[in-house]
Amino acid sequence: MLKDIKFNKDGLVPAIAQDADTGEVLMLAYMNAESLKRTLESGQAWFYSRSRQELWHKGATSGNFINVSEVWKDCDSDTILIKGKATGPVCHTGNKTCFFQELTEADLEG
Amino acid sequence: MLKDIKFNKDGLVPAIAQDADTGEVLMLAYMNAESLKRTLESGQAWFYSRSRQELWHKGATSGNFINVSEVWKDCDSDTILIKGKATGPVCHTGNKTCFFQELTEADLEG
Repeated sequence: MLKDIKFNKDGLVPAIAQDADTGEVLMLAYMNAESLKRTLESGQAWFYSRSRQELWHKGATSGNFINVSEVWKDCDSDTILIKGKATGPVCHTGNKTCFFQELTEADLEG
Repeated sequence: MLKDIKFNKDGLVPAIAQDADTGEVLMLAYMNAESLKRTLESGQAWFYSRSRQELWHKGATSGNFINVSEVWKDCDSDTILIKGKATGPVCHTGNKTCFFQELTEADLEG
């Protein structure tokens, strides 16, 4: 089934990480085939860093790993959803989630 | 703040849609600036269809709209998270969510 995953022209798919208990969406990053394989094999989240252009074991630097309990693909096999528990704040800003800035209609002005 | 959104070279950002009550991740699609503007203004989800290359008012064809209660951006402003309630199954397959296929280590073989 893994060979059906539709990686984009850069060989990547977006991967959403969600807290398995609270349902909170923690972050979105990208996986190549090797990241997805390592995530499934190791039970920890692996991504591909587009800025550093290298495999990225989430938490290897920060110590904040994501222990993955479930991996899902979407209907057209071009997005991954992982559910798991982070061992610390997921965001490099120190926030629990990367989604801590709300947008409103007022942001359309100026 | 909207002008800070980092659209990719195709002018798009990935946008995650999540059920505002259950936390279930429903789908991932893409927004251009106009989609994001219309979502914030109308309170319903608008995306950009990469296959049809046109603005996409989610539900305009299927009748299954997403009524949006919150819009968030991530730490580096290149991903959107919308929280809302869908008026019917979000997925074109008729499933409530697009993420209905689980991957396991067994999928690495064959």
